[in-house]
Amino acid sequence: MKALSLLGSTGSIGTNVLAVVRQFPEHFRIVGLSAGRRIELLAEQVREFQPECVSVGDSSLVATLAEKLPPSYRSRILCGVEGNCAVASLSEADMTVSAVVGAVGLLPALAAIRAGKDVGLANKETLVMAGRLVMDEVRRHQIRLLPIDSEHSAIFQALEAGRKQDVARIILTASGGPFRTWTQAALQNAVPEQALAHPNWTMGRKISIDSATLMNKGLEVIEARWLFDVEPERIEVVVHPQSIVHSLVEYQDGSVVAQLGIPDMRIPIAYALSYPKRLELGLQRLDLAQCGGLAFEPPDHQRFPALRMAYEALAAGGVKPAVLNAANEAAVEAFLAGRIGFTQIAEVVGAALDSTAQGDELDLQAILAADQEARVVVEREIQSA
Amino acid sequence: MKALSLLGSTGSIGTNVLAVVRQFPEHFRIVGLSAGRRIELLAEQVREFQPECVSVGDSSLVATLAEKLPPSYRSRILCGVEGNCAVASLSEADMTVSAVVGAVGLLPALAAIRAGKDVGLANKETLVMAGRLVMDEVRRHQIRLLPIDSEHSAIFQALEAGRKQDVARIILTASGGPFRTWTQAALQNAVPEQALAHPNWTMGRKISIDSATLMNKGLEVIEARWLFDVEPERIEVVVHPQSIVHSLVEYQDGSVVAQLGIPDMRIPIAYALSYPKRLELGLQRLDLAQCGGLAFEPPDHQRFPALRMAYEALAAGGVKPAVLNAANEAAVEAFLAGRIGFTQIAEVVGAALDSTAQGDELDLQAILAADQEARVVVEREIQSA
Repeated sequence: MKALSLLGSTGSIGTNVLAVVRQFPEHFRIVGLSAGRRIELLAEQVREFQPECVSVGDSSLVATLAEKLPPSYRSRILCGVEGNCAVASLSEADMTVSAVVGAVGLLPALAAIRAGKDVGLANKETLVMAGRLVMDEVRRHQIRLLPIDSEHSAIFQALEAGRKQDVARIILTASGGPFRTWTQAALQNAVPEQALAHPNWTMGRKISIDSATLMNKGLEVIEARWLFDVEPERIEVVVHPQSIVHSLVEYQDGSVVAQLGIPDMRIPIAYALSYPKRLELGLQRLDLAQCGGLAFEPPDHQRFPALRMAYEALAAGGVKPAVLNAANEAAVEAFLAGRIGFTQIAEVVGAALDSTAQGDELDLQAILAADQEARVVVEREIQSA
Repeated sequence: MKALSLLGSTGSIGTNVLAVVRQFPEHFRIVGLSAGRRIELLAEQVREFQPECVSVGDSSLVATLAEKLPPSYRSRILCGVEGNCAVASLSEADMTVSAVVGAVGLLPALAAIRAGKDVGLANKETLVMAGRLVMDEVRRHQIRLLPIDSEHSAIFQALEAGRKQDVARIILTASGGPFRTWTQAALQNAVPEQALAHPNWTMGRKISIDSATLMNKGLEVIEARWLFDVEPERIEVVVHPQSIVHSLVEYQDGSVVAQLGIPDMRIPIAYALSYPKRLELGLQRLDLAQCGGLAFEPPDHQRFPALRMAYEALAAGGVKPAVLNAANEAAVEAFLAGRIGFTQIAEVVGAALDSTAQGDELDLQAILAADQEARVVVEREIQSA
């Protein structure tokens, strides 16, 4: 029986984590939950899973949640970053799952690691912003950091089939998103509704837009660099529209080991929760003869410059990946609000990268400051455009 | 430095084994070689690799080889089954690689196992004929049996990514062979030259014909059943014309782990020789974006009945798989000699299976007797046809 704290319980990944917990009550119990603003759903989750402790987005929501819960919960509702960090490091938890979206995931993930919790990581921003620092803490506290991204779960599994020193390349697959075949001209007029219509995965809004720009794959390249301690030049991306091959590892003998499956997040979630065991999830099985062929093509860096920017930010190092991430968060928000066009997302991210100092001094304060500064730059860019 | 004895050194697999040994003289040396009738090539190999001991197909060839070698070899040339068994169990050898073709591989493989040698197995007939018995000996002598078939090497690697108790299915890929898209009518007129033209692999004559009938995949199903201790109903076959995905393992969580690569036998050979290390073979790397898509389709049991026969022989148990194998060997030989047509291969194998008693008593004598009887039945069938 593993006790779990779940950050971001009302999002797409969070609800899938709870689906797995619900399916295996003999294996998992929930001791902590946190969410942002979806209080109605969070209240339902608290009533069902009865955690020790719960946290909401900010202090204004504490009372809103309290009145939907039994009185016994009144003293156990926390809020904000501090609340998230407290839930992340609950003494009752064996493992903390971070399924929050965005830069706000960094501090709670660090809190969990420093409290000695194993971490199931769906929040890629934790490693994008502060990969070196986070992995140092992982080693120092000897905890296990298990990926929940489907691509990184695939790589993690493929790495089990060989020795680290024999790895030649990591190959991340990308669906190519809803605009894979669109012309540059069409991309300029793409609206949020079109960008949100991912061909294979049902995901949250932020990651859906990131899939459409390929920034999501760029963030995943950075995540993979730290998670698997592989040099950036050994990490490649191939577009695979069917999202059946979730990623691959090439070994130096020419063997390529891949993990495949239907696109269902419960597979990587359950794997992270139960590793090294695998649970009988009862999902539809992959039928290769029915899936109509698997295609692969190189990514188009002209139409989708975000991927190249991510490689450049990773190569530049320092706070640049944190700037990339923060600028992208702000830009995606502006796109979803109708304030900028689709192709402007990469443009303002590029502007933020250009206008930010290198910042080699890599401590948490520098990273958080760069994150804030990038958002300011993006806002200025948008207003002056 | 690993000392190797190589059985079947002049065949397609054998020469590839020597290519790997030649590439890594710091890792491997050859202490024993055996071959059948290709004496000129064997003599070259002996001069190059200077084994302690060498064996030829029969006693008539000993002098032929001797006169091509320095006098020091005169007392070290053996022959026949005894010679093969002696080379297989050489005291100097750390590992024995069996790359012989056909039923003649069984006794030398057993000799190697009983002498405590790790075995690299390309001779699938060893496990097809006597899988239970051979695996009992593997456990008793605590040796490592490493597959060299590309499909079984793929499965072996995919199994490293999980726990045995979590395996749901083993999925063997089949190229479909040169006749994949031929009609039944066209198959009846297929000649050896057409059957030998495999689309992806350069292989020996026997296995090329077995690929054309799909009997090769049937033999591999039986081999996988014993090698990986998996029930036949969990072993499936999918046709994959590109031969890039070499096979797959499905786990109970829905994850499917696969090994991919260019079709080059040096990859599985080197993996078996160096496991768990992987050698830098310097081969062309797999480029998924260049390979033009991967297709999968179910096997057609109407046009290719051999696969179904193999499943039935495995289900029947006893000596039936040995009968299947021996009848097929005799039938392929008759086809290559122009004595029967392509579709008659499966017909005479079916006749041999029907006319052989079950033979549940599974000892080596019963297996070898069934093998001989099956060949007699096939000959009778051919002559009466």
